[in-house]
Amino acid sequence: MSAPLYKYVIETLIERIASGELAPGIMLPSEGDLGAELGVSQGTARKALSELERRGIVSRRQGVGTFVTARTPESALFHFFRLRDADGSQVSPVLEDESVQRRRALKPEREVLFGNPDSVYEIERVRSVRSERVVHERSIVPAGLFPGLPERNPLPNTLYVLYQRAYSVAIVQASEAVRAVTGMPDVCRQLSVPDGTPLLRVERRAADLAGRVVELRISHFVTGDRFYAVDLA
Amino acid sequence: MSAPLYKYVIETLIERIASGELAPGIMLPSEGDLGAELGVSQGTARKALSELERRGIVSRRQGVGTFVTARTPESALFHFFRLRDADGSQVSPVLEDESVQRRRALKPEREVLFGNPDSVYEIERVRSVRSERVVHERSIVPAGLFPGLPERNPLPNTLYVLYQRAYSVAIVQASEAVRAVTGMPDVCRQLSVPDGTPLLRVERRAADLAGRVVELRISHFVTGDRFYAVDLA
Repeated sequence: MSAPLYKYVIETLIERIASGELAPGIMLPSEGDLGAELGVSQGTARKALSELERRGIVSRRQGVGTFVTARTPESALFHFFRLRDADGSQVSPVLEDESVQRRRALKPEREVLFGNPDSVYEIERVRSVRSERVVHERSIVPAGLFPGLPERNPLPNTLYVLYQRAYSVAIVQASEAVRAVTGMPDVCRQLSVPDGTPLLRVERRAADLAGRVVELRISHFVTGDRFYAVDLA
Repeated sequence: MSAPLYKYVIETLIERIASGELAPGIMLPSEGDLGAELGVSQGTARKALSELERRGIVSRRQGVGTFVTARTPESALFHFFRLRDADGSQVSPVLEDESVQRRRALKPEREVLFGNPDSVYEIERVRSVRSERVVHERSIVPAGLFPGLPERNPLPNTLYVLYQRAYSVAIVQASEAVRAVTGMPDVCRQLSVPDGTPLLRVERRAADLAGRVVELRISHFVTGDRFYAVDLA
């Protein structure tokens, strides 16, 4: 009987963290108080917190309390930005071009994005490494989830940091479809490479703690000696 | 003081599992017996087993004992074979061509592979999906670790199943460098695509439980509508 209850506590807390009600760094109520509020035993509350700790969503400080994990810009950057130099080191891309437009969601976007939005922001960016334009990316997010996004131009290097800091939307998981393609003329032009250059195309669905898809992103990389790093474990 | 000891127990058990001394499915000694054998307390043995369970290397059956996790061919196949159809479903490739040769290890291979081998087996294979040749792969393994490999021709669809069943080498982790490249003439010929076709090149280092690199693999995929699936969490 305790399994469903403890999952209920986990889901409730994730919902509150995902909505921003419980912000990163905030201290959670004690196990007893949490149990009392949600109508479960202290043991059930403890079990839920242990599982959330295991997943890295909260962290406990002995004798102090349990805190919503503060996700640092660095960890987000390192985890989701996978382009590496030939020697395996992280590349540090520089923003070259950026545009943000509000438009109607295309049908497949509306179907996949959280809240089935009618309107989306499309953020198009080109970034360079040592003056070579190497990444073209198009990020599509529900407009209602990110009010005022176009006014934040220029956007920070890592959009996920902005999503979290300004909108309490934490990207914690992503699934990707990776292909080798012949670059389309418009993308090749923006990357300053000849038409038909082979590009690495990565279609990503990025989701928050609650598993809601909050961003679609299509990236094209000129890999050359650089590579996209993948770890399977 | 208990942290190094409990890590010592973990390393010892992983070493025994990786070497095949403890095969998948086998029951481990009790916590007390294990502690006595390794000269640590029962509590330290318990802590090590808990961590191994968390990592999925052993599993406990209440009231029975602790077992080395049996890795099924299916789970290995699904986890490490990442090519998907356009709709996201797993593709089932068919072997078209295969050759196995023994040769001297190249310097970078010797440096990276477990045991710094002088001799390696190079397994070259082409596989197809619905009669279309879509994967060319070259797997390089230390010859000493896989005695008699060339006599096993034709090799099973999933080499990792063979490594585990016949040689007690379990592949459990891999790191990959992914690039889009212009196909080299010899690879394009074997894949029956025109020279210069964009191919997805995946360089993989596959490691066993103890983190030893036991296979290098260079795969080229004709992605088309298919894609290489990556999950980040």
